[in-house]
Amino acid sequence: MSDKILQPWRVFSTRHALRDRWISVRADGCVTARGATLDPYYVLEYPDWVHVAAFDDEDRLVMVRQYRHGAGVITLELPGGVMDAHESDPLETGARELLEETGHVAAEMRHLAKLSPNPASHSNSAHILLATHARAIRAPEPDAGEDVVVELVPWRRALDMALAGEMIHSQHVAFLFIALAQRQNEKDRR
Amino acid sequence: MSDKILQPWRVFSTRHALRDRWISVRADGCVTARGATLDPYYVLEYPDWVHVAAFDDEDRLVMVRQYRHGAGVITLELPGGVMDAHESDPLETGARELLEETGHVAAEMRHLAKLSPNPASHSNSAHILLATHARAIRAPEPDAGEDVVVELVPWRRALDMALAGEMIHSQHVAFLFIALAQRQNEKDRR
Repeated sequence: MSDKILQPWRVFSTRHALRDRWISVRADGCVTARGATLDPYYVLEYPDWVHVAAFDDEDRLVMVRQYRHGAGVITLELPGGVMDAHESDPLETGARELLEETGHVAAEMRHLAKLSPNPASHSNSAHILLATHARAIRAPEPDAGEDVVVELVPWRRALDMALAGEMIHSQHVAFLFIALAQRQNEKDRR
Repeated sequence: MSDKILQPWRVFSTRHALRDRWISVRADGCVTARGATLDPYYVLEYPDWVHVAAFDDEDRLVMVRQYRHGAGVITLELPGGVMDAHESDPLETGARELLEETGHVAAEMRHLAKLSPNPASHSNSAHILLATHARAIRAPEPDAGEDVVVELVPWRRALDMALAGEMIHSQHVAFLFIALAQRQNEKDRR
């Protein structure tokens, strides 16, 4: 029974219900493995996103605080953003976003994992990068629409906030946990 | 400067660009704290979501595997879903979804944290519940559009998968970490 249920849906129609520079909502007509018709089933199409857990040499995370209009709240998040059309490597995007949003560069940066913002609704992936030896080389130069304040957060403080539900961007909480665990593993091996 | 930047945007217009039973996309015209005009800025309006980290008496997590059409993948996730219009308590939604999707009830269930799916784009919150003494009392009866296979996953296996990036729903990874840490804290105190 599992084999029968765990199958991609059949798509019998597809169109865009809303599409411009900032959003792309695809409306698929689907038949599920059990034979239910879902029409429209909406899929949010985005380019991939890249987020960076960047540690400086004092083991502080380079984070950004900003107003987020979707939820209407001020949040503390990892730096990151959208892969530009000409970028094929998440590491390139990560280095660019880290510099733009925080003014930092990192001596080492590598790809840890590729997750999904929400596989039910989103077509894209979210890449998590681990960066070390981060240091500030200039003032941040965020995009016009990004009002960002940089904060250097001791890693244990970041962990405590995430576990207490004080860091509300759930995707970033996941990236942070994965990066902290990986960093701890590497320290333990040294 | 931080005080000036970390301010809600001024909204000078608002309309819905797409709205039906399944989706609601609001288009706001905004001016940021630094004076940039963002028009349209899209906000995805959803009811709150509720997710349950339910442990049975063998310390296994009650999880669900299913096809997710947004990303076109089979995923392993926590049970959960949308708060119905008549539901005012996330615990009510959590118990209903746990029963519908997995056929389980839990002797104890409580609210751990309220996060956001993505505060940049989403208006709603995502609640994480911790449930214990979960046990199966009937077969799952998921909605027509949900083709769900229940899996009982030892908690350490779930943790390893999440840390390795094998559990790709980033929001659920965050909920899982928060719930596992809380559960471990409670065990340590006993």
